[in-house]
Amino acid sequence: MASKEVVVIIGAGDATGGAIARRFAREGYIVCATRRNADALAPLVEGIEETGGIAHAFGCDARDEDAMTALFDQIEQTIGPVTVTVFNIGANVRFSITDTTARVYRKVWEMAAFAGFLAGREAARVMLPRQKGTIIFTGATASLRGGNGFSAFAGAKFALRALAQSMARELGPKGIHVAHSIIDGAIDTDFIRENFPDRYALKDKDGILNPDHIAEQYLQLHRQPRDAWTHELDLRPWLESF
Amino acid sequence: MASKEVVVIIGAGDATGGAIARRFAREGYIVCATRRNADALAPLVEGIEETGGIAHAFGCDARDEDAMTALFDQIEQTIGPVTVTVFNIGANVRFSITDTTARVYRKVWEMAAFAGFLAGREAARVMLPRQKGTIIFTGATASLRGGNGFSAFAGAKFALRALAQSMARELGPKGIHVAHSIIDGAIDTDFIRENFPDRYALKDKDGILNPDHIAEQYLQLHRQPRDAWTHELDLRPWLESF
Amino acid sequence: MASKEVVVIIGAGDATGGAIARRFAREGYIVCATRRNADALAPLVEGIEETGGIAHAFGCDARDEDAMTALFDQIEQTIGPVTVTVFNIGANVRFSITDTTARVYRKVWEMAAFAGFLAGREAARVMLPRQKGTIIFTGATASLRGGNGFSAFAGAKFALRALAQSMARELGPKGIHVAHSIIDGAIDTDFIRENFPDRYALKDKDGILNPDHIAEQYLQLHRQPRDAWTHELDLRPWLESF
Amino acid sequence: MASKEVVVIIGAGDATGGAIARRFAREGYIVCATRRNADALAPLVEGIEETGGIAHAFGCDARDEDAMTALFDQIEQTIGPVTVTVFNIGANVRFSITDTTARVYRKVWEMAAFAGFLAGREAARVMLPRQKGTIIFTGATASLRGGNGFSAFAGAKFALRALAQSMARELGPKGIHVAHSIIDGAIDTDFIRENFPDRYALKDKDGILNPDHIAEQYLQLHRQPRDAWTHELDLRPWLESF
Repeated sequence: MASKEVVVIIGAGDATGGAIARRFAREGYIVCATRRNADALAPLVEGIEETGGIAHAFGCDARDEDAMTALFDQIEQTIGPVTVTVFNIGANVRFSITDTTARVYRKVWEMAAFAGFLAGREAARVMLPRQKGTIIFTGATASLRGGNGFSAFAGAKFALRALAQSMARELGPKGIHVAHSIIDGAIDTDFIRENFPDRYALKDKDGILNPDHIAEQYLQLHRQPRDAWTHELDLRPWLESF
Repeated sequence: MASKEVVVIIGAGDATGGAIARRFAREGYIVCATRRNADALAPLVEGIEETGGIAHAFGCDARDEDAMTALFDQIEQTIGPVTVTVFNIGANVRFSITDTTARVYRKVWEMAAFAGFLAGREAARVMLPRQKGTIIFTGATASLRGGNGFSAFAGAKFALRALAQSMARELGPKGIHVAHSIIDGAIDTDFIRENFPDRYALKDKDGILNPDHIAEQYLQLHRQPRDAWTHELDLRPWLESF
Repeated sequence: MASKEVVVIIGAGDATGGAIARRFAREGYIVCATRRNADALAPLVEGIEETGGIAHAFGCDARDEDAMTALFDQIEQTIGPVTVTVFNIGANVRFSITDTTARVYRKVWEMAAFAGFLAGREAARVMLPRQKGTIIFTGATASLRGGNGFSAFAGAKFALRALAQSMARELGPKGIHVAHSIIDGAIDTDFIRENFPDRYALKDKDGILNPDHIAEQYLQLHRQPRDAWTHELDLRPWLESF
Repeated sequence: MASKEVVVIIGAGDATGGAIARRFAREGYIVCATRRNADALAPLVEGIEETGGIAHAFGCDARDEDAMTALFDQIEQTIGPVTVTVFNIGANVRFSITDTTARVYRKVWEMAAFAGFLAGREAARVMLPRQKGTIIFTGATASLRGGNGFSAFAGAKFALRALAQSMARELGPKGIHVAHSIIDGAIDTDFIRENFPDRYALKDKDGILNPDHIAEQYLQLHRQPRDAWTHELDLRPWLESF
C-alpha cells in the first residue's frame, strides 16, 4: 500500500466523510479533509493522528472555483500526489414546488452539484498527467428519482450523477476510475438521531447505515483492479424498502 | 376547444418553440411567447396573426426569478388564464471536463435547468387554484445519459428531468399534467444546417426531426384525458441509432 | 387513410384489445382480432360490423410458433397487407418467490413474452419487404420494476421490453416503427370491478384508465411521421402515485 | 469465517464460475459446483483440493425443477447449510429478429432466466428458515439494453434482472441478500480468445475482465454487513466504452 499517497475528501464534516477519512488513513494514506470551516475538522484530524495516521484540515468553500483550484495545487505541491478524491457534500431539503425559493434551489445545486463539478474537474486535472487515480461521488435515493417535494435536491443529485457518468466515459480510458455510490437509506448521524428518532431506533437491528461500512466500500472501489471497475453501486440497509 | 385559453412558451426563439406556438395558435389558444429579446419574436407573432391567430411577444430573462413571476402575473391579469406552459430552452455545449469552465457549467445550468424550475414553479402557482393545466419540459438525449464531454449539458438536462418527475408526482393528483419529452436526434434548424451539413442532408429522407411534428406531439400531450396521461415519451427519427 | 390496410391485434379478448380494434376499425382499417377461442370474439366483431367496420376473428394459440406463422400468412394472402400489429396479452399474477411454481413461471412467460416474440417476429417478417409498418407492445408497471411477489410477471414484462428495444433498434432504420407503451394503473375492466372494488370506485373521478383512451394513443403512435417516432411512453391516471 | 458453510455455484463450468469456486474455497467454504455434466468439473474440484479446499461436483440440468429441488435438498442434508448461491449460466447468442427461431428464443430463456428462477427459489427455500444467506445473479450488458440482434439474450437477461429485483424486495427484509452484478465487457475465456482475437489482445493492458477479479467482488458482496448491502453493481474494464 502506497504510504505517501493522498486522499482528498471534499465535505469531511459529517459522519460519512469522517469515516472515509479514518478508513483511508488506516491504510497509510495522507488524508486531506475539507469543509467550510477548517477548525471544525480538528477532532477528526486529532483522532486520525492519535491512531498513527496523517491528516490535514483545509477550510475551503467548495463552491468557489479559485479556492478549489488553489486547494488541489497546494496539496499537490506541499503534501503529495492526489490518488483518491471523494466528493461528499449533500444538501437534503424538501419543499413543495411553490414553496421552493430560487435561493434554495440555487444553493442546493451549488453545494451538491456545482461543488462536485469543481472538485471532480480539479481532481481530473492533477490526475490526468499520471493516468491514474480514483474519483468517487456520493449519491442518494434522489439521484435516481425525482420525488414529490424534491425538485431542488433531486435536481442537484441528478446533475451530480450526470457528471459522474460524463467523467467516467471520458476519463476511464485515460486510467482514472470515476464511481458513483447511491446511498439509499438513513445514515447513523446526529441529524437522524435528533430529527427521525423512529428511524434511528432501527439502528439496533442494523436498519440504518453505519458510516464505517460506507467507508469500507469506498476503499474497495479504489482498490478494484482496472480490468474490473465498478461505476455505480447502491448501498442500502437490509430493512429498507426500495 | 377553449378559444380564450393561454399557452406560455418559454424559449420560443428557435424552430421548435416557434412551431409549438403556431400549432397551439391554430387551435385557438392565445400564444404568449418569450425570449430574451422580444423584438426577435416579431416574425413569429406576425406569422401567427396573418393566419388569424393571437400571439404576444414578451422579452424575459428566464433566469430572473422576479421577471418570471412578473411575467405570469401580467399574463394572468391582462391576457387570460394560463392553461399550458412549455419550457423549451436548451444550451447544448460540449467540452472535455478539464476545459469546462465554472462559468460555462453554471450558465448552461441557469438556462436549461434553473430557468425551467422558475417557469415550472410559476406555472404551477397560477394553475393550482384551478386544479388544471399542462406543463411540458423539453428534454434531450443528454437527459438520460452523461456522455463524454457533456458534464455541463447532461448535468442541466438531468436536473430538468428531476424537476419534471418531482413536479409530476406532486401536481398530478392536484390536476396538473406535467410531461417531459426526450428529443433524441437533430432537429431541422438553421443551426444544424450550418454546422452539421452531413446530418442535415438526412432531411430528404426524414432523418431529422421536423419541428411541426414535435409541436403536434405537445398538443396531443395536452389533450390527453386525465385518466391516461403520459409523463415521458421520446421522439426520434427512424434512422437515428439509440 | 388507407381503407384496405390491416391491423392485427394479438390478444383482443380484453377491454383494451377490444377498444384498440374498434378504434382502428373506425379509421377504416380491417381488423384481424385473435384470442385463444375465436367464438369469444363474436361480440367484438359484430359491434364493429354494426358501425360499418370490417373485422375478422381468429382463434390462435399465440404461444404456438406454427400457428402464429400460419396466422400472418393467411391474413396476408386472404385479407390484405398487415400495416399494424398490436401485442396485448398479459398474465398478471402475484406469488411469493417460494410459492411460485415452475409451471406458473413458465406459463406467464409463454403468454406475456414468448407469444410477444412470435407475434413481433411474424409481423416483422411480413412488413420488412414493404419497409413499412407499426408494431406496438403493451407493457405494464412491472416492465420497469421487479416488485415483491412479481418474479414471474415482471420477468415476462422485462423480457417483452427487451424484445421491443431489440426490434426497434434493428427495424427502425428499415422503416418499421416498434413501440412499447407502459400502462401504469388499473384499467376499467370487469376484472378490476370484481376484484378491486375500491380501486374501481375511482372511475368516477377518472382514477382508472379508460380503454378507449389507451386505444387512441395506439392510433396516434401509428400515425407519427417517421421523423418523430416514439419508442416508449407511459400512460397513467392523474391520481396514480408512481 | 465459517469453515463449514456451503457455497453453491450453478454453472461452474466456465472461467468465471470456476474462479468464484476457488475464491470461496480459499476462504474455507465448502464448494458445491454444478454443470450439466459433473465429469467436466473434475479439474476444478482437483484444483481446489490440491490447495487444501473442499469441493463437490454435481451434474444437474439447471432447467429441471425436480433436479434443482433435489440438488439443494441433497446438499443441505449431506454437506451443510447453503450460505451463498451464485447463478452463473449465460447463453449469449445474436440473431436478427427474423432469424431467431422459437427454439433458440426458448432455450436461451430456459438457460439464462428459467434456471436462474429455479436456483434462486430453491436457495431462498433453504435460506429462509435461517433468515440468512446471499444469492448473486450474474448479469451482462444485455441486462440493461435490448440491442439489435439480441431479442433472445436480452429477453433472458432482462428477466433475470426482474427476478433479482423481485427477490431482493421480498427477501431483503427477511435477512437474505440478493445481488445482481452486470458484467459489461469481455471476460478472459477460451471463447473470447478463439472467437474475438482482437478483443483478447487487449488482455495485455487489462482491457478484458479477469475472472479472479469478478470472483473477488462476489466474495465482497457476500461479506457486506447487512446495514450496507449492494443490490446492483457493474464491472467493466477501464478501456470499455459504455
